[in-house]
Amino acid sequence: MSDPPTPTVIILAAGQGTRMKSDLPKVLHEVAGRPMLMWTVEAARVITSDENIAVVIGHQADLVRAILPTGIKTVTQRDQRGTGHAVLLALEEGVGSEGVVVVVPGDTPQLRGEVLEQLVDFKTDSSSGVVLLTANVEAPTGFGRVIRDTDGTVVRIVEQRDATESELAVSEVNTSVYAFDAAALRAVIGDLKTDNAQQEMYLTDTVGLIRERGGVQAMVGDADDSLGINTLGQLADVDAVMRMRINQELMDSGVKILDPSRTYIDASVTVEPGATIYPDVYLQGGTTVADQAVVGPSVFAIDSEIGTGARVWYAVLREAIIGPRTEVGPYASVRKGTVADAGAKIGTFVETKNTHLGEGAKVPHLSYIGDARVGQNSNIGAGSITCNYDGFEKHETVIGDNVRIGSDTMLVAPVEVGDGAWTGAGSVISRNVSPGALAVERGNQKEIPDYAAKRKAKADDT
Amino acid sequence: MSDPPTPTVIILAAGQGTRMKSDLPKVLHEVAGRPMLMWTVEAARVITSDENIAVVIGHQADLVRAILPTGIKTVTQRDQRGTGHAVLLALEEGVGSEGVVVVVPGDTPQLRGEVLEQLVDFKTDSSSGVVLLTANVEAPTGFGRVIRDTDGTVVRIVEQRDATESELAVSEVNTSVYAFDAAALRAVIGDLKTDNAQQEMYLTDTVGLIRERGGVQAMVGDADDSLGINTLGQLADVDAVMRMRINQELMDSGVKILDPSRTYIDASVTVEPGATIYPDVYLQGGTTVADQAVVGPSVFAIDSEIGTGARVWYAVLREAIIGPRTEVGPYASVRKGTVADAGAKIGTFVETKNTHLGEGAKVPHLSYIGDARVGQNSNIGAGSITCNYDGFEKHETVIGDNVRIGSDTMLVAPVEVGDGAWTGAGSVISRNVSPGALAVERGNQKEIPDYAAKRKAKADDT
Amino acid sequence: MSDPPTPTVIILAAGQGTRMKSDLPKVLHEVAGRPMLMWTVEAARVITSDENIAVVIGHQADLVRAILPTGIKTVTQRDQRGTGHAVLLALEEGVGSEGVVVVVPGDTPQLRGEVLEQLVDFKTDSSSGVVLLTANVEAPTGFGRVIRDTDGTVVRIVEQRDATESELAVSEVNTSVYAFDAAALRAVIGDLKTDNAQQEMYLTDTVGLIRERGGVQAMVGDADDSLGINTLGQLADVDAVMRMRINQELMDSGVKILDPSRTYIDASVTVEPGATIYPDVYLQGGTTVADQAVVGPSVFAIDSEIGTGARVWYAVLREAIIGPRTEVGPYASVRKGTVADAGAKIGTFVETKNTHLGEGAKVPHLSYIGDARVGQNSNIGAGSITCNYDGFEKHETVIGDNVRIGSDTMLVAPVEVGDGAWTGAGSVISRNVSPGALAVERGNQKEIPDYAAKRKAKADDT
Repeated sequence: MSDPPTPTVIILAAGQGTRMKSDLPKVLHEVAGRPMLMWTVEAARVITSDENIAVVIGHQADLVRAILPTGIKTVTQRDQRGTGHAVLLALEEGVGSEGVVVVVPGDTPQLRGEVLEQLVDFKTDSSSGVVLLTANVEAPTGFGRVIRDTDGTVVRIVEQRDATESELAVSEVNTSVYAFDAAALRAVIGDLKTDNAQQEMYLTDTVGLIRERGGVQAMVGDADDSLGINTLGQLADVDAVMRMRINQELMDSGVKILDPSRTYIDASVTVEPGATIYPDVYLQGGTTVADQAVVGPSVFAIDSEIGTGARVWYAVLREAIIGPRTEVGPYASVRKGTVADAGAKIGTFVETKNTHLGEGAKVPHLSYIGDARVGQNSNIGAGSITCNYDGFEKHETVIGDNVRIGSDTMLVAPVEVGDGAWTGAGSVISRNVSPGALAVERGNQKEIPDYAAKRKAKADDT
Repeated sequence: MSDPPTPTVIILAAGQGTRMKSDLPKVLHEVAGRPMLMWTVEAARVITSDENIAVVIGHQADLVRAILPTGIKTVTQRDQRGTGHAVLLALEEGVGSEGVVVVVPGDTPQLRGEVLEQLVDFKTDSSSGVVLLTANVEAPTGFGRVIRDTDGTVVRIVEQRDATESELAVSEVNTSVYAFDAAALRAVIGDLKTDNAQQEMYLTDTVGLIRERGGVQAMVGDADDSLGINTLGQLADVDAVMRMRINQELMDSGVKILDPSRTYIDASVTVEPGATIYPDVYLQGGTTVADQAVVGPSVFAIDSEIGTGARVWYAVLREAIIGPRTEVGPYASVRKGTVADAGAKIGTFVETKNTHLGEGAKVPHLSYIGDARVGQNSNIGAGSITCNYDGFEKHETVIGDNVRIGSDTMLVAPVEVGDGAWTGAGSVISRNVSPGALAVERGNQKEIPDYAAKRKAKADDT
Repeated sequence: MSDPPTPTVIILAAGQGTRMKSDLPKVLHEVAGRPMLMWTVEAARVITSDENIAVVIGHQADLVRAILPTGIKTVTQRDQRGTGHAVLLALEEGVGSEGVVVVVPGDTPQLRGEVLEQLVDFKTDSSSGVVLLTANVEAPTGFGRVIRDTDGTVVRIVEQRDATESELAVSEVNTSVYAFDAAALRAVIGDLKTDNAQQEMYLTDTVGLIRERGGVQAMVGDADDSLGINTLGQLADVDAVMRMRINQELMDSGVKILDPSRTYIDASVTVEPGATIYPDVYLQGGTTVADQAVVGPSVFAIDSEIGTGARVWYAVLREAIIGPRTEVGPYASVRKGTVADAGAKIGTFVETKNTHLGEGAKVPHLSYIGDARVGQNSNIGAGSITCNYDGFEKHETVIGDNVRIGSDTMLVAPVEVGDGAWTGAGSVISRNVSPGALAVERGNQKEIPDYAAKRKAKADDT
């Protein structure tokens, strides 16, 4: 027996989401760091390949097209003429000519690929023209209700706006996810009418039409898996659900998360088993956290690497690489282009940018180090600053290995401090320092006796 | 037909709240930044005007009176003789002579004006002497139970202390919110007895007395709306409920709140649609946040303005004005009297106080700027400080437009730096700087060769 | 009538917890800052004395033994041969020779002593050979099911692996907590078989064996009290439960906790009534917080004292003593050996270490003060640093009373500044300063006119 044809997936992403009060197309709002449409694409990829996925887009089509993988077809619906019309446009472009055609909304990021798999299996095993994914909800207001006859057969779906009092009391709702038989869908799609509250072609009306021509069945799913996002409140709710899924998977894999309800890890992030994550941690973009690293409390990291056994707390990291066993924080801002090798330290009230710290190099307190290279095991005294900007351009500071930079040293770039050199506290270093030398810029300490008494007398006078 | 008389509202705010373990009168504890009594006053204002509101106060009456709007009447109950006695005192002072008299406790901040409206409508439409607001709760322990007879008519309310075993099993409880017919209330209030567990006049006993003279009815409400606060644990619970209401309203209006369970916005705060609020944000007092601003994570702002498109994160703001598109943080403390104009920057490890930053002025790192005026597009180098305190008084630093302050510049106030001037890194500037000039205070950089080797030899010696 | 013998408690702590994905023995994972085994020991101590407690340990026995109080007996189970075998080993070593023998797992930190007390009372009042603690759960998968016959009598416990379909449907589960009659236990323990899925001696099988010889009874408890921890997800869940218990107790005692769901107070910490705790606060180890102190938002404190009326926010404290009415933060790192007397201030972007601040001494901004003594009412200017490290050793800085350290002063230790002395801004102080004197190290301020124009011309040239 030959395999059934690969399913087709049509994703409906043309809705404008006016209740989100934002110019951004609704399906581009992010959930756990990923545009919600891409969650749906990832779910579709579980059951089919990219060339069998079509996305119907409308509002700000270019923005939506820009985030989609190149192999995925897009269909443009210029006017808001309803979900039925959106599917019709896709079919007219040759999408879904045979086999199972799955239609899913682009605003249900929590819908998992395995649920689509179950739905397709259900459809494949049945002879019905369509299988609906439905859910029982406590507060059905706003959803289309699933109307069944007395023997439980699905008859049709009725929208909130068009429902009677007794229909409104039904708690089983349409999730807007369908597995159609391609032929059955094509047979009825042209018959959809617009004589309803919104004067649009409702895809839901295919259910009644298909029923007349063959069976309609429903697979009752979990409400949490499939209800759409229409408001910023629902966006926050779904974001919380998706974050908990990510955190649960990480905990199952061996990541210790102390309070998963307060840990914000994007779908794009990698955390290795054996890492520990404290609360108030945001990991975004291409961030990776290695084994035995301890991150948080209060860390915001984007596109950064945190190495094995590193300790990062009360810190902001942007495009930074933190080496194994390196310490960062409390209270550090590690900016773009910072690379800290193994055992380095970026301590308290320290900001770094476009800087390489060699193995064991330490910047413990109150420093700004930018556009610099610091050699192995060098130590930068508290209050030291690389004066990298001359008012016109940025210049580089090069510090050798085993250097001792005294407290409050100003390194006026471009400048080099040789291996093993020292600088005196409070010095402005504007010329290169030879290896092993001490460079100091300082006047003599003078004392004015009884100053306090005189000063007070003067203050009292005025 | 003439309108019915405006309802009277008597708020009972004399309870001492000893289980709160605090000297503060219970009704002054804050919920979402507002004393809980004021939430009740605001609810009362939905159904009546200030001259028809009376608050019965006891413990530390002056403190309570001080927060009430001037038009609201107060009645003092010197001794704790019960809720019935409190209402009696109000009636004796002429409060509630006709129409509907609503009695509410002062410790139910979550009670909404619309619920009072429904209760008054219910009372107005009925001929009963009193309508109780009741609620069904899962754990009724501690509450007065609503006792009904076999046909469902309310018979009386029985306090926990005085209830029989079977009465204790009742899950419908008294919320202590009542809409009385003024005449019915006045007819029975004098008959209240004190032969009970607390030897006080219970207002609840009016129910039984009125029943003998006319109907008693109950309106069953939502428990979340109306249960009182008696412990610090309940205070925290209600605070969470009220914060979620505020956040939900803001999200409905178009504010993007990423995690509403971790966002603390006081009732007094304004956030415009289009703003985005990250977790761990506290907005208090008269704070306002404009359209397109992005606030958080981790921001504490009190009595501050955050302008359109501003970006504020990991920062504390007190009585500060942050202009449009201005950046603050990460790790900034912006204190009283800071005004940052459009496109300014208060960066990392920067503290400002009583300071005006002109358009595009930047203080990027490690600086304390106090009692200063900084002109447009000026840049303050890392580590710079206004030495505003001479040990006796504060003095002002004035920096012109387009100034370049070098790193680690000490500006010894009073001092002025002219437009377009520069200062050298590490300089102490104690005299005014002419426009366009460079001011520098620095010695010569000297070098001691082979210092490291000698220093080590000396250290090894000791 | 004589008292019954003191109960014996056998704690089973030999499980390896492989699903925790950690080398640490499962019972040493911390819950609310205390190894989970110690929670069970504390519960056992409610019903008996240390000499009647035995802990069966296996995996990494030395690590487990190290945390146990010295009076508690340990029994080593070298091979993983099941819970029945573990109890057998304890009995063979003479544990539990008479009276009631309570067996509890070492991975149920939420089990309270009062529940054990009820269980022992239940057993003492009955003549049954064993009383099981059971619980009804919604999702029983993974737990041993309690099988009862038609008249409700407990027949046996069947493990998930060995259960039939209908047994799997049972929602009453074994919590693995038992109160045995010593004689009944000893009579059957030798008869346990290993003909089951794991080829181990199951303690649960004693139930069936005892049933044949005498009664078996069950006490149905609360699922939250007694279900074991097997995954990092369950660890996080139980940690949340235990933290809420701690917070609830503190609120009941009069501590104001604004958001208990975001407050992390270890079991070892003391917080006095009248203190206020904001969200994002971690209190660990021997930390104490006194009356009227206000702590948070965002404070991490370990082994530190926070005095009466102190105000600490946005700060990290490690082994520090903060005096009455002392202010710390926002953004302070207070390290080991810091002692701040009454009314002192450790302000914004300030780090201290091994330092004593006298009464009213203030370090308001941007300073590192280490290995120092600062006298009463002295003020340290912004940007000042104790240069305590000469590249080889740490040295001390001594500052007298009423000293005014100017901004950006480098104090090159060892150095002393006498009472009432001053230092000039930007000075490097490397010699002692006499009392009342002003010490200053500074060059002359020079001005290069028209520098900006020349500099720009030069920049344009290149």
